[in-house]
Amino acid sequence: MPRLVTLAAAQLGPIQKAEGRDVAVGRMVRLMERAHKRGVEVVVFPELALTTFFPRWYEEDISRADHWYEHAMPSNETAPLFEAARKYGIGFHLGYAEKTPDGHRYNTAIYVHPSGEVVLKYRKVHLPGHRDFDPIRKVQHLEKRYFEVGNLGFPVIRAPVGGQEANIGMMICNDRRWPEAWREMGLQQVEIVMLGYNTPSLNMDNRGFEAHHLRVEHSHLSIRSGCYQNACFGVATAKGGTEDGHELFGHSIIVNPQGEIMAQATSWGDELITADCDLDDCNLGRTTIFNFAAHRRTEAYQRITTQTGSEAPPVWKPGQG
Amino acid sequence: MPRLVTLAAAQLGPIQKAEGRDVAVGRMVRLMERAHKRGVEVVVFPELALTTFFPRWYEEDISRADHWYEHAMPSNETAPLFEAARKYGIGFHLGYAEKTPDGHRYNTAIYVHPSGEVVLKYRKVHLPGHRDFDPIRKVQHLEKRYFEVGNLGFPVIRAPVGGQEANIGMMICNDRRWPEAWREMGLQQVEIVMLGYNTPSLNMDNRGFEAHHLRVEHSHLSIRSGCYQNACFGVATAKGGTEDGHELFGHSIIVNPQGEIMAQATSWGDELITADCDLDDCNLGRTTIFNFAAHRRTEAYQRITTQTGSEAPPVWKPGQG
Repeated sequence: MPRLVTLAAAQLGPIQKAEGRDVAVGRMVRLMERAHKRGVEVVVFPELALTTFFPRWYEEDISRADHWYEHAMPSNETAPLFEAARKYGIGFHLGYAEKTPDGHRYNTAIYVHPSGEVVLKYRKVHLPGHRDFDPIRKVQHLEKRYFEVGNLGFPVIRAPVGGQEANIGMMICNDRRWPEAWREMGLQQVEIVMLGYNTPSLNMDNRGFEAHHLRVEHSHLSIRSGCYQNACFGVATAKGGTEDGHELFGHSIIVNPQGEIMAQATSWGDELITADCDLDDCNLGRTTIFNFAAHRRTEAYQRITTQTGSEAPPVWKPGQG
Repeated sequence: MPRLVTLAAAQLGPIQKAEGRDVAVGRMVRLMERAHKRGVEVVVFPELALTTFFPRWYEEDISRADHWYEHAMPSNETAPLFEAARKYGIGFHLGYAEKTPDGHRYNTAIYVHPSGEVVLKYRKVHLPGHRDFDPIRKVQHLEKRYFEVGNLGFPVIRAPVGGQEANIGMMICNDRRWPEAWREMGLQQVEIVMLGYNTPSLNMDNRGFEAHHLRVEHSHLSIRSGCYQNACFGVATAKGGTEDGHELFGHSIIVNPQGEIMAQATSWGDELITADCDLDDCNLGRTTIFNFAAHRRTEAYQRITTQTGSEAPPVWKPGQG
């Protein structure tokens, strides 16, 4: 008996700076309707799905950015998502900017059961970009300004996913490039990683030549290797298209535990991609080549947790060998 | 001024069980002659390059396997490699089975300066397979029987590589699938990872369906993501072809810090592939997206070094959210 669940990545096209949450929520509700018609059990929406990717806009006074954050979840504006989930019996993953009652700001994702209950919350750990205005950049990437580093680790929980129980975890955007994030969840037997992202088509760091045509490839490479090396499914959902002149590369994918792409978005607009995923496909890797208990050697990994930055190696001198 | 070095992967075709080291060494010397003609400065030979991949053969009494191991390096049999290195001014990487004077057995690799001095030694950490005869397997994979886990960590050293100084490290075969191995070296600013392998075209574990057509893809996926996520070059050299009826998949590659394949072997025999590698290409990743000091969060990685095997996650109950 396969443990089948039907998963979807619900890619969003661009959300302009001037557009309100009602626009984004309306589009997401329509994607949930479409998901229902397609027999989908869980829908994954992108990172910061309710607004434009606002960390590209600098505010000297961060309190002037408060309107980008959610102060409650659900709220009046997001309630239609929870209603659609109940109506269609679909669970959903949503990324949004969170401001807590005591004033902390996080780049957050939740997984919501069709009942409307929040099953799991994650706050982004790997914040890319910078804290202060950077005159070298043509476009700012101020995630380190607008968010604190997530304080929930990489939690995994066993919960209902469609008609099955599954071990689910989350990461957000840049987290996917860090094998540490995948491994933390692999060590908790994650079966489905839900992952939203907003990634510019061009790296605006302007500190060297990066091959622009490899931007999508690097994203897919990281997701595919993370899924393969941790024997899990990945549902990676983008915001795509041009937000106020700034292009995001889309290319949402669903990946299996062999690292294969099962479905891929090919537009830069709102687009639903789906796959029937047999959760038992996670077992082969876990019990053979990636049987961690049999093969991992933690004594050889100590730098990973004791050393943050890289350090120059010793220098060899002739005659020392 | 680019920091150019010309690197080669010197893939070996099969070595039959009955063939002596003289056969393998002779073929390797010819590959070094070819490397010289092609202007190569460093040649990377495969794992266990001097013999057949003997861990597929079971010996009840391990002392009967002693003839597969090197008891000295160089020895009379391997001296021609060191002589060719001196003659052509080429450094080389060699994988071999090592038996130490006090009786320890390792799956080992060395990097040898053209002078003949051993610059760096590595002993394989991630030993795949099993220790005892496994009746389920059509072919045994007894690395855990024939080798102890390497006791040198993942050392990186700055040393002459052609006309440059480079930070070099090594891994062996199955190590390449473990992002921990890559990261240990990335944290030491590795610029060139030398990597030999002997990988069967079929997984003989016979405990589930593995997609045979993905075997090469999984190898390349792991190497490419390791290079990209640690901003280093990888020279990954296979033994390929059919050893006594057992097929090894070849497909040696040289990969750049963007994760791109620069050169690939397309035969299953002795084959030299080469690439001009600008070591300064390691800088972009290291100083931007993979600036570890700026972005890594070791507090979120603690399971990686405190937990060897995976653990089941907590179970969500309705009403707890």
